[in-house]
Amino acid sequence: MSAFATPRVFAPVLTPFRADLTIDAPRFVAFCRWLVGQGAGLAPFGTNSEANSLSVAERCMLLDRIAAADIDPAQVLPGTGACALPDAIALTRHAVAAGCAGVLMLPPFFYQGVSDEGLFAYYAGVIDAVGSERLRVLLYHIPQLTGVPITHALIERLVAAYPRTVVGIKDSSGDWANTVTMLERFPGFAVFPASEALLGRALPLGAAGCISATANLQPHAIAQLLAAPTAVERATWEGRVSTVRTALQSASMIPALKAVVAHFTRHDDWARVRAPLTRHAPADVRALLAQLDALGFAMPSIDEARA
Amino acid sequence: MSAFATPRVFAPVLTPFRADLTIDAPRFVAFCRWLVGQGAGLAPFGTNSEANSLSVAERCMLLDRIAAADIDPAQVLPGTGACALPDAIALTRHAVAAGCAGVLMLPPFFYQGVSDEGLFAYYAGVIDAVGSERLRVLLYHIPQLTGVPITHALIERLVAAYPRTVVGIKDSSGDWANTVTMLERFPGFAVFPASEALLGRALPLGAAGCISATANLQPHAIAQLLAAPTAVERATWEGRVSTVRTALQSASMIPALKAVVAHFTRHDDWARVRAPLTRHAPADVRALLAQLDALGFAMPSIDEARA
Repeated sequence: MSAFATPRVFAPVLTPFRADLTIDAPRFVAFCRWLVGQGAGLAPFGTNSEANSLSVAERCMLLDRIAAADIDPAQVLPGTGACALPDAIALTRHAVAAGCAGVLMLPPFFYQGVSDEGLFAYYAGVIDAVGSERLRVLLYHIPQLTGVPITHALIERLVAAYPRTVVGIKDSSGDWANTVTMLERFPGFAVFPASEALLGRALPLGAAGCISATANLQPHAIAQLLAAPTAVERATWEGRVSTVRTALQSASMIPALKAVVAHFTRHDDWARVRAPLTRHAPADVRALLAQLDALGFAMPSIDEARA
Repeated sequence: MSAFATPRVFAPVLTPFRADLTIDAPRFVAFCRWLVGQGAGLAPFGTNSEANSLSVAERCMLLDRIAAADIDPAQVLPGTGACALPDAIALTRHAVAAGCAGVLMLPPFFYQGVSDEGLFAYYAGVIDAVGSERLRVLLYHIPQLTGVPITHALIERLVAAYPRTVVGIKDSSGDWANTVTMLERFPGFAVFPASEALLGRALPLGAAGCISATANLQPHAIAQLLAAPTAVERATWEGRVSTVRTALQSASMIPALKAVVAHFTRHDDWARVRAPLTRHAPADVRALLAQLDALGFAMPSIDEARA
């Protein structure tokens, strides 16, 4: 039974930074605990985690902290893709050793116009080097940032070569036609659409849930959506989560998410970002919070003391 | 006196891999020695070095090997840009400790549409963290791969804040108008145009030389071009290097360069690339070598025994 057979929500966990831009690991772990308590799985080191702004050592350290916090590794799906094959191998090995449910793997994203042959060699290189029956890989299709699409031909080739290992994809392209085609063409493959706003359409087609930026803010509501017993209840939850999502999407997503968490946790570590991102200007934060307030949105208490 | 006041040629040193795709460091060092002997400086960890396919530890190790080989560090200009600030800081620190002439710094290239404010914070973050009077930074403008251009406004701001540190730029955009504008707008700033084929036009405008892929194959000819005492001699050398450049440009540049070096050194380590790149097909290699042969191109002996 695949860890991704029942629709789930994963949060690409935001990464809090101290004033000197080092990682505030205790605050990160407390937030992870809160997310899991709200019904979400953890996808640390995603795009919204500023994964590529973290060193390999920092990512391994945070994964160790999650493990030390007694969070069930079956809830954890870290991002382990990297431009350099040795980095991707090291991160993926670490995730497998920690017993994670799987890994979410970006393609290498520096060179442009690379071939499916080269991308196959990259994924095969990681899978072969890690050499574990327990490894489960989700591919990560986000061409608007990488410039390197995961084509259907590549998926087909990887699934044929590694049927037990390459088990799904996150489609962050926002191209709904692409999501539908993959759902139809690869039955049993875990396809995660771009966001919770697509779940109403995607779940009846067999989508695996969502790995969504805004799951950092509304994990419980998305989990309720996924668990809704009727189409009517699902539509109600979908309306609710979509309005929050829309409010955030009009802003620069990562600084906006962090500003909201900083507000509700009353701690500035959450608002910081690493360059090249820049934090939200105070006026933009006020406008965003007013908009969320008008939607009746609030984050419940996060017990930082447990960190 | 700036290390970049007199026009120079730097080779973005190719990186040889063993059959298991680990780095063949002795072969790399022998090649570095050969390049320097031919009159070129070394720009290891450039685009053509597959820098982003190497881990930080691998890049530090290779820089240590160059130092251990008694190559004058004034000849060395390593690439130290990275998506993650801690990686860029670690690499730049290592280069400064080794006494390198300077560093060539890519902007972080995962996030797209980032602001000059964010890019300034990235470069300032590295320069401040390294905190050395000896650091010299060349910016690296290669938007066709990074998606992140180095604007003239950003250059202006960095030079104003760090006049002794931010001393130049490599313009790999291939946009000649951009190169000319920078040469005119920033006198004293070391501007390296995209390739040796532009030197005839760029040198009279004050260009700093070139950091060029094909300097791996024809370092001596480019050095002769730069040293040519008359416009006529310069034109002769430029014609010669440009035809070789053109032959290579019609192919996938990195695998093509490596295939040529593999042929002349008679060692297959040179032909290997790391995924997502793929090596040149045998028929393509034969066609390329025939074309170079028709141009009268050959690489002189590289003394691998000294490695």
